[in-house]
Amino acid sequence: MGRWEPNARGRLEAAAMSLFQERGYDRTTVEEIAARAGLTERTFFRYFTDKREVLFWGSEHLRKLMLSAIEDAPEAAAPLDAIAAALDAAASMLQQRREHARERQELIAAHAELRERELIKLATLAASCAEALRGRGITEPAASLTAEAGIAVFKVAFTRWIEAPEAQELSRHIRVALEELRAITAGTDAAPAARARKASPKAKSPRP
Amino acid sequence: MGRWEPNARGRLEAAAMSLFQERGYDRTTVEEIAARAGLTERTFFRYFTDKREVLFWGSEHLRKLMLSAIEDAPEAAAPLDAIAAALDAAASMLQQRREHARERQELIAAHAELRERELIKLATLAASCAEALRGRGITEPAASLTAEAGIAVFKVAFTRWIEAPEAQELSRHIRVALEELRAITAGTDAAPAARARKASPKAKSPRP
Repeated sequence: MGRWEPNARGRLEAAAMSLFQERGYDRTTVEEIAARAGLTERTFFRYFTDKREVLFWGSEHLRKLMLSAIEDAPEAAAPLDAIAAALDAAASMLQQRREHARERQELIAAHAELRERELIKLATLAASCAEALRGRGITEPAASLTAEAGIAVFKVAFTRWIEAPEAQELSRHIRVALEELRAITAGTDAAPAARARKASPKAKSPRP
Repeated sequence: MGRWEPNARGRLEAAAMSLFQERGYDRTTVEEIAARAGLTERTFFRYFTDKREVLFWGSEHLRKLMLSAIEDAPEAAAPLDAIAAALDAAASMLQQRREHARERQELIAAHAELRERELIKLATLAASCAEALRGRGITEPAASLTAEAGIAVFKVAFTRWIEAPEAQELSRHIRVALEELRAITAGTDAAPAARARKASPKAKSPRP
């Protein structure tokens, strides 16, 4: 039995992320990750099944946070408000780790096996949220649609959050995306052609 | 060079689907599929890279149909109308093959590698639709949100279409899901508790 190591998971994660950046995800081994963290491979495997899991261990925690938020939403909350509460809970978990989220997303974008795993994670999140919504008495297809629309909002807001040159609150991106979705489905988000006809040729005000 | 075989793709597909049902997806070989279709393995590989592709060869055609529908939507069409046109195009392609779609979906649900491939297909569809919407001058995040919401509607409507005990038009399920999404985002889809308070205890009218 290995002795207890303080913050072993965090150290292994930090070591893995550094190595993935330095030499690439494919060329990094578990042995190297453990060595960089000053820990044994045996300790690595107490926390992760493989190096891929270093990028996904938070998924289950995220899922539970979102489900709790849906369950705890006020009884009279509309379906979209319940899913908005779940997205807010996700945002507060992720907010403190924007740089990590950005690096992780770059790795995922570059590796087919990680993209597949991420898509499965999001599909599982949507299915779980739909189930939690049904638990609130919301019937189908409303429950699944609300959950899928919520995950769509999350994906779009998350991408904008990590790509924005200046850090803004993830929860703000989520609110903006939710409002945009409302506008789109209400049909008030006019076609570009119609918008162009309506727009008056205002001069841009110079920056102060 | 093998000689031209009439409807080789269709025969191979039908043979594969029968074998997948009879002995399971994992235990079916390309050799058996070709033999059942009365064709050679060589012919099989002219149409499909492997047995998995028998279930996915239509994806690219579906994607192109949806993109054309977005491109051809009237200039003044709102984003949601453009994606609705794409979903309608998809529905008319799939409508004639409900039994095939149902069997295919059962196979996908039962095999992790097929689920992954299906999720990738849907993510690719969403990304392509978002690009086509940007091609219409729709900016971000509206383009991605519209595309993702459209795919969400499609997933939910498709599931209801193949699960419904009686065959209904897929396009009708899509319209219903789109209307439901509008109601959800408009907040007019009240919480079940609120709905229960409003509902009057009407007697169900007996069937004729």
